[in-house]
Amino acid sequence: MARSPRRAAGRRLQLPLLCLLLQGATAILFAAFVRYNPETDAALWHWGNHSHADNEFYFRYPSFQDVHAMVFAGFGFLMAFLQRYGFGSVGFTFLLAAFTLQWSTLVQGFLHSMHGGRIHVGVQSMVNADFCAGAVLISFGAVLGRTGPAQLLLMALLETVLFGINEFVLLSLLGVKDAGGSMTIHTFGAYFGLVLSRVLYRPQLEKSKHRQGSIYHSDLFAMIGTIFLWVFWPSFNSAPTGLGDGQHRTALNTYYSLTASTLGTFALSALVGERGRLDMVHIQNAALAGGVVVGTAGEMMLTPFGALAAGFLAGTVSTLGYKFFTPILEAKFKVQDTCGVHNLHGLPGVLGALLGVLAAGLATHEAYGEGKSLDSVFPLVAVGRRTATSQAIYQLFGLLVTLTFASVGGGLGGLLLKLPFLGSPADSQCYEDQVYWKVPGEQEEEAQGPLRAEEPDSRA
Amino acid sequence: MARSPRRAAGRRLQLPLLCLLLQGATAILFAAFVRYNPETDAALWHWGNHSHADNEFYFRYPSFQDVHAMVFAGFGFLMAFLQRYGFGSVGFTFLLAAFTLQWSTLVQGFLHSMHGGRIHVGVQSMVNADFCAGAVLISFGAVLGRTGPAQLLLMALLETVLFGINEFVLLSLLGVKDAGGSMTIHTFGAYFGLVLSRVLYRPQLEKSKHRQGSIYHSDLFAMIGTIFLWVFWPSFNSAPTGLGDGQHRTALNTYYSLTASTLGTFALSALVGERGRLDMVHIQNAALAGGVVVGTAGEMMLTPFGALAAGFLAGTVSTLGYKFFTPILEAKFKVQDTCGVHNLHGLPGVLGALLGVLAAGLATHEAYGEGKSLDSVFPLVAVGRRTATSQAIYQLFGLLVTLTFASVGGGLGGLLLKLPFLGSPADSQCYEDQVYWKVPGEQEEEAQGPLRAEEPDSRA
Amino acid sequence: MARSPRRAAGRRLQLPLLCLLLQGATAILFAAFVRYNPETDAALWHWGNHSHADNEFYFRYPSFQDVHAMVFAGFGFLMAFLQRYGFGSVGFTFLLAAFTLQWSTLVQGFLHSMHGGRIHVGVQSMVNADFCAGAVLISFGAVLGRTGPAQLLLMALLETVLFGINEFVLLSLLGVKDAGGSMTIHTFGAYFGLVLSRVLYRPQLEKSKHRQGSIYHSDLFAMIGTIFLWVFWPSFNSAPTGLGDGQHRTALNTYYSLTASTLGTFALSALVGERGRLDMVHIQNAALAGGVVVGTAGEMMLTPFGALAAGFLAGTVSTLGYKFFTPILEAKFKVQDTCGVHNLHGLPGVLGALLGVLAAGLATHEAYGEGKSLDSVFPLVAVGRRTATSQAIYQLFGLLVTLTFASVGGGLGGLLLKLPFLGSPADSQCYEDQVYWKVPGEQEEEAQGPLRAEEPDSRA
Repeated sequence: MARSPRRAAGRRLQLPLLCLLLQGATAILFAAFVRYNPETDAALWHWGNHSHADNEFYFRYPSFQDVHAMVFAGFGFLMAFLQRYGFGSVGFTFLLAAFTLQWSTLVQGFLHSMHGGRIHVGVQSMVNADFCAGAVLISFGAVLGRTGPAQLLLMALLETVLFGINEFVLLSLLGVKDAGGSMTIHTFGAYFGLVLSRVLYRPQLEKSKHRQGSIYHSDLFAMIGTIFLWVFWPSFNSAPTGLGDGQHRTALNTYYSLTASTLGTFALSALVGERGRLDMVHIQNAALAGGVVVGTAGEMMLTPFGALAAGFLAGTVSTLGYKFFTPILEAKFKVQDTCGVHNLHGLPGVLGALLGVLAAGLATHEAYGEGKSLDSVFPLVAVGRRTATSQAIYQLFGLLVTLTFASVGGGLGGLLLKLPFLGSPADSQCYEDQVYWKVPGEQEEEAQGPLRAEEPDSRA
Repeated sequence: MARSPRRAAGRRLQLPLLCLLLQGATAILFAAFVRYNPETDAALWHWGNHSHADNEFYFRYPSFQDVHAMVFAGFGFLMAFLQRYGFGSVGFTFLLAAFTLQWSTLVQGFLHSMHGGRIHVGVQSMVNADFCAGAVLISFGAVLGRTGPAQLLLMALLETVLFGINEFVLLSLLGVKDAGGSMTIHTFGAYFGLVLSRVLYRPQLEKSKHRQGSIYHSDLFAMIGTIFLWVFWPSFNSAPTGLGDGQHRTALNTYYSLTASTLGTFALSALVGERGRLDMVHIQNAALAGGVVVGTAGEMMLTPFGALAAGFLAGTVSTLGYKFFTPILEAKFKVQDTCGVHNLHGLPGVLGALLGVLAAGLATHEAYGEGKSLDSVFPLVAVGRRTATSQAIYQLFGLLVTLTFASVGGGLGGLLLKLPFLGSPADSQCYEDQVYWKVPGEQEEEAQGPLRAEEPDSRA
Repeated sequence: MARSPRRAAGRRLQLPLLCLLLQGATAILFAAFVRYNPETDAALWHWGNHSHADNEFYFRYPSFQDVHAMVFAGFGFLMAFLQRYGFGSVGFTFLLAAFTLQWSTLVQGFLHSMHGGRIHVGVQSMVNADFCAGAVLISFGAVLGRTGPAQLLLMALLETVLFGINEFVLLSLLGVKDAGGSMTIHTFGAYFGLVLSRVLYRPQLEKSKHRQGSIYHSDLFAMIGTIFLWVFWPSFNSAPTGLGDGQHRTALNTYYSLTASTLGTFALSALVGERGRLDMVHIQNAALAGGVVVGTAGEMMLTPFGALAAGFLAGTVSTLGYKFFTPILEAKFKVQDTCGVHNLHGLPGVLGALLGVLAAGLATHEAYGEGKSLDSVFPLVAVGRRTATSQAIYQLFGLLVTLTFASVGGGLGGLLLKLPFLGSPADSQCYEDQVYWKVPGEQEEEAQGPLRAEEPDSRA
């Protein structure tokens, strides 16, 4: 356990230097490329020609605020279920998401909103950047407690690029629809994180087993996250859809889907629980699967019944995943998944993509009308360049592309995070805030158990 | 304490089967009856004829989201003040509200929004369903900790029907105004729950007395609920009112009423507290009475002073209720009221109904103008079919109808919940999460006290 | 420690009587002066002449709700980091803000929105009143745990008047721009509180040192406050700006500034932390400095890069302030600052004012266009009554005026709070909820340590 002072000093400077380097780089790129868009710029937005009410701000900002609250409060507190990792869960969520908002503005801007060599930003780009942060936080959930903040920032750096490319391929090249991100956010984020976790597999993790569970109060903090996510999910799926009936319908479908996943989760949790008792892990997570599963099809003419059926299926599959599949994932596939993102985002994300295939394939001119509504949901079908069936095939292809990008990206990410100079907590130090945070009252605990006070150990 | 394995297995399957049955039934009814309304349906919402900005979504969705957050985060955490019932408070709120949103869509749809044999849904119906969930959660507050989830689902099943009928009688048959639900939500929910609690009276409840209080941290979790409810209440009362000045005025009145109930609550709590100290129970609850008391009159021309006066009265009455009336309610009337819903929703709800009588009786053409504003608030007075005085009498009659429906419904509900096969916690097991939830770290506690691990006991 | 029963009874009645007196006075003044404005009044808002969508409610209410949540949930929980002062932090925030909303409606109304001898209220006045409550809560943060509720109400009574006058001088007399309140809210609130704290300096405060820190769970409660403030800050700064591009641009600038202050805070916190570890105090507070620093310039053509640079500077300065300046402030300047408001609101507020000077001085007709946008941001420059440079000088003068009003006001406030009959906690009783609150489970603690149960002691 002897370490040279020089290596310790190096590790001490790692996070500060990385933060400063990344912030410096994005600031320079912002100065060179990022400009207000015409709805944000004083000179470009001439009042004489517009009513204030026409500014996109008023159509999207309330939904944006809900999404923003979901990303920071929802994801952050949902992960605070661990008894000794509340600071890391909420704090690293804060750090990762803040960096991703900047970096994703650049990546998404370069890929699909350059105008005259400049990236134009406004409320829509704010929503898009928050969506990318959502994907990064899903991946974080897979490796929660087993990675340090410098590793996580590098993960975000890489994942944001791959997220942007995958999104560009799907939405711009393939003409795939995925407003709420069943594929681009949930499937991508989950499998990126799971493959990355596979590369970082720790066979000796039982050394930290006593810290891997929750305590009574940490489960209540996690429920703050759950409720935030659940309540605002209709805004998440509807934030980027077409205006008018599109946003309205998407919010409605998501609302009903979530009620059904909640009922499904309670039913299955009691059914498979010891002595018929409910498990907080299921309620905190699987009840949200109804939001994930309508991420693609929510803007389509899913029907209220379709939303209920999809949500119920997602809630039950997700609960069964927590009960039966997570142990297999670790034992057989050597994938450790702290938050069970495979059950909340992976499986329901894939189901959501398939639901989108179905809903696209069944789209008719009658259901969507001849007006601009079909044009908003399936523009290539509306103008006759595609049939509904070919749109469905493109949707399916989009899922395969996403799984490929996520897997390759997660693999690369895992290799990157194994770089020997990046500190990562020792196997006996996982899920422990004291490794990276000054924790109140820790002197007493140090006295009791010296282990807790150990410094992070590079795993090279 | 011997139980046959068959009964234990039956109880274990009770919640799963009930959830599946209810979800299956509402799904079938959704398939048969529920359709997108013209503002949500792609084919019916022709863009050529509307501006996006005309879609009702943009006028109501921000308020809806606030209401939605109040129902799930507000009510859920407000009830989490009990030291060992945080999972049940937040979790069963989640379950009950999710089911009620579906079921209430159907009940309210059948009663007052059928179009060509179909129920048309959109943001307005989402608000209405959330309002019904609010009433169910108020009743839940009366019996919190003394009922199991299967019992609570049956309560929600019955209460939603009666809520819908009472609402239909008041709003559609009697032409009563009650936008924020002083009568239909608060009075109804409170007296339904209190009568139900009377039927389920437990004379031996002191066996669970040690778990009936709060601890320091549970009181802070409850304050999350209080603050959510307090902050968003202006949206609650204004969500369904007329657009324009109606929503604006209602939000303003509610805002001021709540500030006054807060000052009144602090004043009275310190006045009646031991050694002049404040009581968290009062602050958590009575400070909210200002929102309840303007539930009917908030959209009327109450004046800002009227809002202050009403709020102050409600805050003081509610605080005095907690201090002096709750003990009498249990001792004399055999009504156990875990959350004091009589003080927060019952008394202030009745006061709010009476305030509505007063405000309706004082309505003049001068105060409301000759334009469409009077038509929006008091349509029958505007068209000359009623005088202000007769509107006031109808308002009073609405209160009596509500009290009748609530009492009869609560009585029926109590009988339903006493069905012998429905498990309910033993008197010594009330206010204890371990009965229905897998609680972290419970092995150790089981070792200390075998009582806690006991299974629910049917009270037949 | 002997006290006459009469003095004890007097103290017991102090808070109730003060609340009742203040509420009575504001109610009378409301009755005499406060009226619905034309957008809130049924008779004045003729539907025939307006579209509902024109009502200012729809442009400002979503932002108002975010601000309202920040004031009550954000400030309240942010201050709940103290281990034994959660009730006081959240509860007194509730009391002070509720009173300030009423009182500020009157003060701001008298000073700058009288119409025909009446104060007209609507969503804009609701935002303004919440802003004043924000300033009062900042001052509260400086003296948190060392003052009683009656003292705090008197502080709010005085501070609201001075806030209103300062705001009137800046915005109406000097034509200074300060939409998000870098000067009027943050600088004013911080220096008012710090000077007041100086007057109330307690040399023996180490007697309460063991209660001055956080515990693990109280730090998580505080993060609820941080996240609320962080997420909704774009709405805070944009709530009162010009419609259209103005609100849009302000929200965008604030969004980016906050991401940069977060990265800066993490970098500096790890850099200056023991063994490179992060400090929750920094993360909870300094990460928010990015919102403060663009309070003046956020509505100006700051550019996205400018927002990043400003936020990063504020985050680093604020973190360094917590680490190095707070100890000096106490040791050398005898200013005790419980929440470090000097670091979160004082320094970043002054920086924000200076950034406003810079942005105003650099304003050109090209950047803002010849249309109404320049008129919205710098009306006196648009009509040719000022050059950009003279606007910049006025901005700088506004900062000096604010510092003067805050210092004089804080001094007066300190003298007021020293009035001998106002109870204030003894030096050994600071940061302790039991002084003013009935705390659950306190019987047991009383048995262990009689000190905790002591009554507040007048410091005369």
